[in-house]
Order: sequence, then structure tokens, then C-alpha cells
Amino acid sequence: MRISQLSAVSGVPIPTIKYYLREGLLPQGEQTSATRAEYGDRHLRRLRLIRALLEVGRLPVATISEIIAAVEDEDMPLHTMLGTAHYALASPAEHAPGDPEHVRARERVDRLIDALGWTVHPEAPTREELAQVLVRLDQLGMPTSDEGLREYAALTMRLVAEHEMGKIPFHGARETAVESLVVGTVLYGKAFDVLRRLAHESESARILST
Amino acid sequence: MRISQLSAVSGVPIPTIKYYLREGLLPQGEQTSATRAEYGDRHLRRLRLIRALLEVGRLPVATISEIIAAVEDEDMPLHTMLGTAHYALASPAEHAPGDPEHVRARERVDRLIDALGWTVHPEAPTREELAQVLVRLDQLGMPTSDEGLREYAALTMRLVAEHEMGKIPFHGARETAVESLVVGTVLYGKAFDVLRRLAHESESARILST
Repeated sequence: MRISQLSAVSGVPIPTIKYYLREGLLPQGEQTSATRAEYGDRHLRRLRLIRALLEVGRLPVATISEIIAAVEDEDMPLHTMLGTAHYALASPAEHAPGDPEHVRARERVDRLIDALGWTVHPEAPTREELAQVLVRLDQLGMPTSDEGLREYAALTMRLVAEHEMGKIPFHGARETAVESLVVGTVLYGKAFDVLRRLAHESESARILST
Repeated sequence: MRISQLSAVSGVPIPTIKYYLREGLLPQGEQTSATRAEYGDRHLRRLRLIRALLEVGRLPVATISEIIAAVEDEDMPLHTMLGTAHYALASPAEHAPGDPEHVRARERVDRLIDALGWTVHPEAPTREELAQVLVRLDQLGMPTSDEGLREYAALTMRLVAEHEMGKIPFHGARETAVESLVVGTVLYGKAFDVLRRLAHESESARILST
């Protein structure tokens, strides 16, 4: 299809498509004459992925470039490729990880992940993120127990394993797997957050009415 | 204690305390002479609450004023008072709730809450928030089933009822209950979000290594 059709089918305006082509986010079409190029399903899939990364993941263009480089590098294993997108969704670290309180919290996180038997990269930024939340809870007088944290984590794994991972098409196009991972991570995260607040209201009503 | 001691004990700078006094967020101290006022535990508790609402809840000062008015209105039932803080943490609605897709999603949310037997105000903004997430998941080709949503919600309730609500001191000072609710809602939410992403990585490793 021509660029005008690609725009019509994808809903992405032509100037935006041209911008993605210039930035290398979208591969060039097949040149059929000096002024014409043909686009196909591959371009449509890529546009869907870019939209998910931009609008749902709210990632900056530089980060999107890195993820797309990983998608295009067919030698990169799927798990590593998904990791680049996954880690990009982590919040940047807030504190210097040097202070003793943080170091202790980080050790707790590492022990927790070991105790759960989860397979998580030793340098995954999510480990730091969790350590920071534990430090804040301590500082604000709502410390967590190791046992409580482990039970909370185990229930979390049930949600993920039983309700989320099944929706990711690991065996289709690399683009589609990343897109599902990003959309699922962000939107299921949002859904859970809202359900949790609904549950809070309901439990608060129950406790305070007795 | 004098304002200088209040500052030292709370860690809040004197000019900030004076700003809170002017804005009515902090009650005036007891005037002991023309230039001196005495502050007590009540002021310390209030400063902790303001800090939690500002730094953890990231709420604007106008919203904090409303929550504090609810805390000070002793005639307002505890559940209603907690609701003002709780709803303030909801994201503002993104779409006009008029389009048919949204109306259908909102009806699904209402049916879900009925089916679960949860006690949630009919106009709670969280209902709208959840409807919007369901619309986005549909639009992005990852629709949720009613059954999946109900199971996800039931697991969420377990997390909340077994691990979160027990930490809120419903029978102490009104300030302390609101503070715990806000800190718990935001930071446990963050903890869960990170645990969920750790679980994703681990499950992805497990699925892709077999």
C-alpha cells in the first residue's frame, strides 16, 4: 500500500509517519519508483507498537528507538528483547543507593526474590524500585514484615501467572509480543490499582459499619 | 513547645510552618504572649499528615485544604472523611463519559461491583476510572472477560483485606487514620506495581526457557 493508505488504515497522520521514517522508528518502504514506496503489514504492526510505547507506555522517543533496535535485532533472544521494554517502564531511581537504610532494604529485596524462587536479573532496576518503596514505608512509620511481603508477593504472582501472562503472544511477531507486554503491563497495572482502591472503599465501609 | 522546637522535632522548616498556618492547614498555636504561641502533639500529627498528602499523595494544596476541613469536622463520619482523601487520589477522568463504548464499560463495572457484593458509592470516581481502563484495553486489542475481571478483583480483595486494611488505625486520631490511608494506598500500590513487574520478568523467563 502507499503511504496515504498506510495512514488511513493505521489512523496515523502522514507527517507523523514521515517523522517515524526519518527517526528510523519505522523501516523504509520498498521503493517502487523515484517518488513512490510500498508499505505492508510489517509497517502496520510497527505503527501499532510505536503507538503503544508512546501513548500507553508514555516512553520518550530515545527509549523507543532502543526498544525498536532490540525488536529488529533477530539475534537477540526474545526474553532479552522483552526485558528492554520492561525495564524502560521502571521509574528512575530517586535516592543514591549508598545510604545504609537503602542498602539494607535492597538486601531484603534480594532475599525475598531468592526465597520466592523467582528468576530476576541481579541488576534489574525493579529491585532498586522495590527497595525504595520499603525505605519510604519504614520512614513513614508503616514498616512491612518479611512474612507479609512474601505473602503479598505470592498473591501477586498468582495474578500475573493466572491472568496476565496468558495474553502475551510469545510465538508471533516480535513487535506483537512487545506491544502486548507494554499494554498489558501498563493497563493491567492501572486496572489493578483501581480495583484495589474500590476494595479499600468497600472494606472500609464494612469495618466502620460494625 | 515553641515554633522553633516544632520545626526541629518535625523536620519542617519554620517558614513552611508559617505558610501552613496562614493557609489554615495547621491550626494556630495557643497564644501565650503577644509574640509567642505554644504548639503540641496535635500540631505534630497535623504536620505528618500534610507531609504525607503532599509528598506521598502528591496532592495540590487546595485538595489538602478540603481533606483537612473533613478531618476537623468531627461531625463527619470517619468513613466519609476517609472517602474525601481516597477520592482525591483518583486520576481525573480522561474521556467525556458520553460515548457508547464508555457507557457500556461503565455498566460492566457497575455489574462487576454488584456481583462481587462490594460496598462502593454509586458516584465513586474509581468506577469511571476502571471503565476507562477497560475501554483502552478493548481499543488496543486486549479485551478482558467478565470472568477474568471478577477473578482478578477477588484476588485484589484478598490482598487488601488480608494485608492492607489491618494497618490502618481506625480508632486513633482522625489525622492518623487519614495519613495511614494515604501512605498505604500510594506506597502499597507502588510496592504491588513493582512486585508485579518482577513477577512478569520471572514468568517470562520460565515460559521462554521451556
